[in-house]
Amino acid sequence: MPVVVQDADSQQVLMHAWMNRDALEKTAASARAVYWSRSRQQLWTKGESSGHYQHVKSIRLDCDADTLLLQVVQEGGIACHTGRQHCFYQKLEDGAWKTTEPVLKDPASIYQK
Amino acid sequence: MPVVVQDADSQQVLMHAWMNRDALEKTAASARAVYWSRSRQQLWTKGESSGHYQHVKSIRLDCDADTLLLQVVQEGGIACHTGRQHCFYQKLEDGAWKTTEPVLKDPASIYQK
Repeated sequence: MPVVVQDADSQQVLMHAWMNRDALEKTAASARAVYWSRSRQQLWTKGESSGHYQHVKSIRLDCDADTLLLQVVQEGGIACHTGRQHCFYQKLEDGAWKTTEPVLKDPASIYQK
Repeated sequence: MPVVVQDADSQQVLMHAWMNRDALEKTAASARAVYWSRSRQQLWTKGESSGHYQHVKSIRLDCDADTLLLQVVQEGGIACHTGRQHCFYQKLEDGAWKTTEPVLKDPASIYQK
């Protein structure tokens, strides 16, 4: 099911991911966000390669019981694999997508392992 | 594609919906949120039966270009079809989903048309 991930302090929406039952159970048990990769067909812990773990403060379910909302504390302040604070850095302006958020850290230095 | 809908003022995540290209174009053109219903296989304008339209303040796209984030002003202050402010009113506490948000308006009186 889809998962909306929001910063527990700033309320910024950081990213959108996916979970299955196993991912939800592991997230609830460890208080670290664990997602389901649809492309790789496997569980992944956010931060396992970047160190940018997400510490889960609350887990919410929507009215149709088919979407989750996680409020997290984002380690390193970087949720996006592009090195930005969050993934929604392209804004629609006059019919075109404009990048509005700076790269805080070079991805090459984040994923050096 | 999935759409995260957030209140432009409070930053509360209101709901999660879906769009196709046509829905996005209509949303951008009208500044009112138009979604794609996967169950009914048709476009729907949020508020068309409830009056709870969403006035769109910004449209953002994520890093993978496969998820949208809308910031909206929610007419009536009710985004959820259950009559609540938002859809994520069930919180995981001690392994059980607990309802944390009040019903602000009886759905029977919202959808009387």
